[in-house]
Amino acid sequence: MELGKRYWAIAEGYIPPESTGKFPEMESHETVCILNAGPKTAHVEITIYFSDKNPLGPFKEMIPSQRTRHIRFNNLSDPESIPKGVDFSSTIISDEPIVVQHTRLDSRQAENALLSTIAYGQ
Amino acid sequence: MELGKRYWAIAEGYIPPESTGKFPEMESHETVCILNAGPKTAHVEITIYFSDKNPLGPFKEMIPSQRTRHIRFNNLSDPESIPKGVDFSSTIISDEPIVVQHTRLDSRQAENALLSTIAYGQ
Amino acid sequence: MELGKRYWAIAEGYIPPESTGKFPEMESHETVCILNAGPKTAHVEITIYFSDKNPLGPFKEMIPSQRTRHIRFNNLSDPESIPKGVDFSSTIISDEPIVVQHTRLDSRQAENALLSTIAYGQ
Amino acid sequence: MELGKRYWAIAEGYIPPESTGKFPEMESHETVCILNAGPKTAHVEITIYFSDKNPLGPFKEMIPSQRTRHIRFNNLSDPESIPKGVDFSSTIISDEPIVVQHTRLDSRQAENALLSTIAYGQ
Repeated sequence: MELGKRYWAIAEGYIPPESTGKFPEMESHETVCILNAGPKTAHVEITIYFSDKNPLGPFKEMIPSQRTRHIRFNNLSDPESIPKGVDFSSTIISDEPIVVQHTRLDSRQAENALLSTIAYGQ
Repeated sequence: MELGKRYWAIAEGYIPPESTGKFPEMESHETVCILNAGPKTAHVEITIYFSDKNPLGPFKEMIPSQRTRHIRFNNLSDPESIPKGVDFSSTIISDEPIVVQHTRLDSRQAENALLSTIAYGQ
Repeated sequence: MELGKRYWAIAEGYIPPESTGKFPEMESHETVCILNAGPKTAHVEITIYFSDKNPLGPFKEMIPSQRTRHIRFNNLSDPESIPKGVDFSSTIISDEPIVVQHTRLDSRQAENALLSTIAYGQ
Repeated sequence: MELGKRYWAIAEGYIPPESTGKFPEMESHETVCILNAGPKTAHVEITIYFSDKNPLGPFKEMIPSQRTRHIRFNNLSDPESIPKGVDFSSTIISDEPIVVQHTRLDSRQAENALLSTIAYGQ
């Protein structure tokens, strides 16, 4: 049986600007957690949507069979980095069924998550 | 393929009263994040439900094709503002498929979200 | 069109014991938020499940048409109160379609929610 | 009527390493909350997925009829413990319908949850 879906979306996204570093210990990390519990490698395309300009991407990622990947949005750099300090949304489209969760890490708390939300899957 | 749904609901909502400002730095912001990943402009109607009076709205918003909008409930003002300090729920009805997430921002943490929840979509 | 579902469940629940009051300002409030956006009164039965004893309830509640109710678990008292300091789950069964969200309020932050999760609906 | 589903997944998981104990009071606890509201005992298999090695498990658990169980990932030990300080995902497969929620407890706050997310169910 297939576990997961191929079309996912996360409506909320925001990478804090590095320059507001009054409290650098409060920097947080946007992460998209992807599980591929199936028998084949999943090829994933992440697209970033903004309020006032065209989408960015796709960022191409691979998740091997029976593996998980926790991808930080601030580490995406090809074709270009996601701008900081602006609202965005994302879609995660896969050729194999996957499960997607959105997590924000708070570095003050030794990698504890500040919030986590199941993505919208269909 | 269409990504998203046209009928969404958020059962929890609350805008803190401004007058309890002992800790103004703790003011938070209720936000509804809407992604329109499709090829057409989405016309959205937001309705606010209360515990003891008739619903308020609809508040009409547009989300262009392939854009996201993060709308703060406290900025809605037409036909009238949402009262502060009372529990409410909301529905978000669209003529095009969208994805909706509910986020509460905590202004103490430089726009970091305090919580975020996928809305109920059908 | 009907908005919502009639069968909901929240797997996580916990009311902190009052006696651990070293930090009374940290008391939190378990809340189930219910939206009835439909044209008829919803009659709702809440049942509480434990790890080591029979379920408690049903607690009977009514949500009028086009109204929301934010019900605190610690205020449920008929047939009896939910014990504090123990893990529980809950089901919310309605005769009309509703939308359910689980929220924990943190009284330190002037009614701001600490966490909020969409319930499981079917 | 059956309440719940048999196949669940949680894409995000992380048990903080014990050795980073500068702030031992900040230790958190990963918990999977499972409700079995049905008439039969549910036999559950939990499998843990990693980014760079084969899955671990299954860990076998039972949830009696009409009971809930809040299982801490750090207490799973058979066939072996989940390593700390690494990202993981999990699947929860049951022979009876169940409802699954993922919660992280923050021990600083007397068992209050830091975050909670409905799992992906199908």
